[in-house]
Amino acid sequence: MKTRILSGLIMVPLLALLYFGDYVLMAGCFIIGVVGVYEFYKGFRAMEVEPSYPIAVVSAVLLYGIGAGDMTGIIKLSDPYIFWLFVSVLLSLLYMFKIDERKPADAMATVTGIVYVIFFSYHFFLVDQSDWPILIWIIVLAAFGTDIFAYFTGMALGKHKLCPKISPKKTVEGSVGGTLGSVLLCGLFGYFFAGDILMHCLVLGVLGGIVSQLGDLTASVFKRHMGIKDYGNIIPGHGGILDRFDSVLFVAPLVFYYIRIFM
Amino acid sequence: MKTRILSGLIMVPLLALLYFGDYVLMAGCFIIGVVGVYEFYKGFRAMEVEPSYPIAVVSAVLLYGIGAGDMTGIIKLSDPYIFWLFVSVLLSLLYMFKIDERKPADAMATVTGIVYVIFFSYHFFLVDQSDWPILIWIIVLAAFGTDIFAYFTGMALGKHKLCPKISPKKTVEGSVGGTLGSVLLCGLFGYFFAGDILMHCLVLGVLGGIVSQLGDLTASVFKRHMGIKDYGNIIPGHGGILDRFDSVLFVAPLVFYYIRIFM
Repeated sequence: MKTRILSGLIMVPLLALLYFGDYVLMAGCFIIGVVGVYEFYKGFRAMEVEPSYPIAVVSAVLLYGIGAGDMTGIIKLSDPYIFWLFVSVLLSLLYMFKIDERKPADAMATVTGIVYVIFFSYHFFLVDQSDWPILIWIIVLAAFGTDIFAYFTGMALGKHKLCPKISPKKTVEGSVGGTLGSVLLCGLFGYFFAGDILMHCLVLGVLGGIVSQLGDLTASVFKRHMGIKDYGNIIPGHGGILDRFDSVLFVAPLVFYYIRIFM
Repeated sequence: MKTRILSGLIMVPLLALLYFGDYVLMAGCFIIGVVGVYEFYKGFRAMEVEPSYPIAVVSAVLLYGIGAGDMTGIIKLSDPYIFWLFVSVLLSLLYMFKIDERKPADAMATVTGIVYVIFFSYHFFLVDQSDWPILIWIIVLAAFGTDIFAYFTGMALGKHKLCPKISPKKTVEGSVGGTLGSVLLCGLFGYFFAGDILMHCLVLGVLGGIVSQLGDLTASVFKRHMGIKDYGNIIPGHGGILDRFDSVLFVAPLVFYYIRIFM
């Protein structure tokens, strides 16, 4: 647990990324995406599925290229993201053409890594570029807040198992505590730094607390089938990038579409 | 072969869809998408992979809902398609939560069917809604033209195998003949019906002829692994919807992005 808390502190510099925003944040997101998908694909190899990492990198470069072009106003294609999706899926399908060595699962895992890890984490950058860049803090507070509060509430009060088959240590008490923690942190943030959208911060605290746990459980489902405990070991006690950002992957799109639809 | 040609004629009414465009074409595309993905998923069951058809239908409804909203001007979300992608992927991932019954391959196949069959075929509708709706005819001419000319050229002159492991009957001669046939048909169409964009029609004839065959081979790779000859038997001698539209799936996006980038 000591390692866990210490490693938690290691995350602090990451918050600097959020503070600077724009290109710095973009670079950070890109790295999270390409390292995350690397770990994800490594997990698949344990199941004898061989996704194509080079295709994922090409896809990430194209996606962030579109983002950079959009940010600088260079690119003015109407539908750049569907073009990106088409190219990514096309490359993944053509990857199967070496039919002796490759199988549909390899292509399907390539596509899944691209849309789940690279595309989902890209929303972190999209929130930064939205009308409410301040809400990138809500992503972090909801995701990490839920995790930390769930951990300690579960330790102190945990009795009823949440979903033992997916993640044996999680408890209903921890889940509720995590969500309340997310609401608390997002509410405090709203109160002190974004008073005019306090209600939105609270709502995002609730939704983020729930969605954050779905992100965590999704990563657990994959890992359970892959037969691994962690995706990597970049951060001692926290596993890989993907272990740490599994919740962010889900909360970032939530916040982005919440902004687009309700704000 | 007689059945094949007769069934080819059965395709003619389909051309009426193109003629009417808009809602009629949209409905046709939707049906091709949801029937196609049904066949695709059925093929997976032969490999003991169980994608979720209901999720694919929800995804298709959402996608075409966005398309209809856009067409009528009701919806004015900025990035409706990435929202659609997020929802589709999210549902597919959550589908795994019944961890006793389901596995990552089920979710991955669900995602792949959605982006490959539903999303690719959706471009047919997008071309109809673009600045150059007349080019929907080019999609059909390139895709079916390549197929028919490749078939007869291969029968008459075929000597060198193209890629025997994926599709044993295809020959290099058939492939070249197919592409030339596509250029011929697209060129004639351009000459008689779209003289001002004849060059574009010819270029699309070449590209379409090549991409069309990649679409055909992609479907073959899947079928080979699934251990099936055809995806279905809706059209006698032509198999299922997906057997017939495998080339269109690839040519429709090609034409759409060609329009967006070069025209």
